[in-house]
Amino acid sequence: MTEVTYQNYPSERLHEFCRRVFEHYEVPPEDAELAASVLAMSDLRGIDSHGVGRLYSYSEMLDNGRINPRPQIKILRQSPSTATVDGDNGLGLVVGPRANEIAMEKAALVGTGWVSVCNTNHYGIAGYYPIQALARDMIGWSMTNTTKLVQPLWGGERMLGTNPIAIAFPGLEEPAVVIDLATSAVAYGKIEIAKRKGETIPDGWAIDADGRNTNDPQAMMDLGALTPLGSFRELGGHKGYCLAAMVDVLCCVLSGANWGPFAPPFTLRQQLPERSVGKGIGHFFGAMSIDAFIEVDEFKRQIDDWVRTMRATKSQPGTPGVIIPGDPEREAEAVRSKEGIPLVMTLVEELREISRHTGIPLD
Amino acid sequence: MTEVTYQNYPSERLHEFCRRVFEHYEVPPEDAELAASVLAMSDLRGIDSHGVGRLYSYSEMLDNGRINPRPQIKILRQSPSTATVDGDNGLGLVVGPRANEIAMEKAALVGTGWVSVCNTNHYGIAGYYPIQALARDMIGWSMTNTTKLVQPLWGGERMLGTNPIAIAFPGLEEPAVVIDLATSAVAYGKIEIAKRKGETIPDGWAIDADGRNTNDPQAMMDLGALTPLGSFRELGGHKGYCLAAMVDVLCCVLSGANWGPFAPPFTLRQQLPERSVGKGIGHFFGAMSIDAFIEVDEFKRQIDDWVRTMRATKSQPGTPGVIIPGDPEREAEAVRSKEGIPLVMTLVEELREISRHTGIPLD
Repeated sequence: MTEVTYQNYPSERLHEFCRRVFEHYEVPPEDAELAASVLAMSDLRGIDSHGVGRLYSYSEMLDNGRINPRPQIKILRQSPSTATVDGDNGLGLVVGPRANEIAMEKAALVGTGWVSVCNTNHYGIAGYYPIQALARDMIGWSMTNTTKLVQPLWGGERMLGTNPIAIAFPGLEEPAVVIDLATSAVAYGKIEIAKRKGETIPDGWAIDADGRNTNDPQAMMDLGALTPLGSFRELGGHKGYCLAAMVDVLCCVLSGANWGPFAPPFTLRQQLPERSVGKGIGHFFGAMSIDAFIEVDEFKRQIDDWVRTMRATKSQPGTPGVIIPGDPEREAEAVRSKEGIPLVMTLVEELREISRHTGIPLD
Repeated sequence: MTEVTYQNYPSERLHEFCRRVFEHYEVPPEDAELAASVLAMSDLRGIDSHGVGRLYSYSEMLDNGRINPRPQIKILRQSPSTATVDGDNGLGLVVGPRANEIAMEKAALVGTGWVSVCNTNHYGIAGYYPIQALARDMIGWSMTNTTKLVQPLWGGERMLGTNPIAIAFPGLEEPAVVIDLATSAVAYGKIEIAKRKGETIPDGWAIDADGRNTNDPQAMMDLGALTPLGSFRELGGHKGYCLAAMVDVLCCVLSGANWGPFAPPFTLRQQLPERSVGKGIGHFFGAMSIDAFIEVDEFKRQIDDWVRTMRATKSQPGTPGVIIPGDPEREAEAVRSKEGIPLVMTLVEELREISRHTGIPLD
């Protein structure tokens, strides 16, 4: 087992560093600020895999011309409650918020707005988007496909992404219910952590290159795959596969993006898929005006009651008891906004490399 | 182990029997036909738990005045793309299809339609509703809450229903992708089957009244609970809980129905919840016009490609290989439309009792 050491950075400093790095790569100032704010929210909320930890990939892709720093985002088709958006191969961190904005604008006019996006790239945490809707008294939705990593149930290879679903509901006195889940049983990051620590992984997390259940993180990382939520047929693995399929179709088939195994990878070192069936990866956003359904205050009071009722559930022995979706991220934010973001030293080294390459100071 | 015997009935005869039973209980002819057709689809598609097997409960609830046979379904609030519907305590098998129709009508006008429904009852299989949208070149969604049966992760008691999610996508030459899944790890029916056969149940299906994992079906049935999809924290049980929560809020908090543990039960023998937080149970329907996003033929061709690509996945050893959501139900329908619906003799006895009580011939 290897010891891991951390260095804490104030969120504001990392935010500023990211913003300037994006600008260095020709991203316009307003877009650079937007992209940096998506990464900052991820780090603050404790989702280390989707924050500044990804800056190296973004900057590498920008540096190599694989991502367009100045996209002309276009609406390809629309109706009063829908739009299909072409992200012009821009940063998902910019295309995503703009498309989400279109969904919210439509919801303000006709009750709901639904936007499917093609020709885009990795958009950060799925939860960022519905959180934007909360302040407008809307229920926000977001989904994205990702590079293939997950087996469809009974398949022996990677065919689908971890395809997350996020949705959020505002409370009045209680905090919002914020749901953000990948449709795989576990995140790839958990496999990497087990590998780094020299630990085995539990049954139900992954298969190896032959399609067999494996407890060896390296066997998954080589040419194995993650399992869908539910893991096995007996525990409902077909349901996780169905949810990943739903996300794949709404984000990609509906917009004209690359679905399933054809999603382009997010790092230079990964191979491009054998064929292309569309443009870039895809996202799907939704916004629903609460007052198009019910009085906003009545809805929020019921959410408060829902939250308190769930918290009052009798606890399962040996567990902390029932928590509310969004609790862990809120707790992380409370700590990290004071104490800063703990970065593993390998990540600090990566950021220092970006700093040397761009001339933008980190420390 | 007890041997189970079956008797086959033609689908048409069961459909006719159900229709006449509903009419007997003062359901108007058109509504009785609609309700019977929802049950018939369930039996044809092999979902025995939601077809004629539920007729006894429906008729008992109608007979006792717990369900209103002639509801005045009202739109409480609407916008161009949304509606909130009060089902006037009618059969879910009638209120559901009518509300789903409103969603599709709105989608035809403004691209999408979204309808949240309160004051309704059990609506049959979730998959019935999106299947209606396929013929109109729409993507259909449906969700419902149900009587409490599932633990929120880390909870030691029933607090949520099995809260299903269904969505369907049409193909051109390939059959539609039809997703219909409960957000619990397994259906309650699987516990009942294990009990009937005198078998134990696997880890991850259920907890007992103390909140501990149990392998005894009776321990779950007494005062235990089903687990959410993902079963344990380690395998993503928090995600199943999040999905059940999402369904609960969209169906109930958004419409003004009874959410979580307060959903009224669907049989007379079950206790009413300790308090009421709304009216009846809730549903949520969505319809999205495909041509509001992309050319319909282009979408369907990509779905065909998606289906063929998934089918071509390398198989996991010891499994039948990857299937497409909707395949098992299509196979059941192919067999049952020829050979009839196999009813267990206990169910045949129940139907004969309804027949004696109503004077409507079964055989």
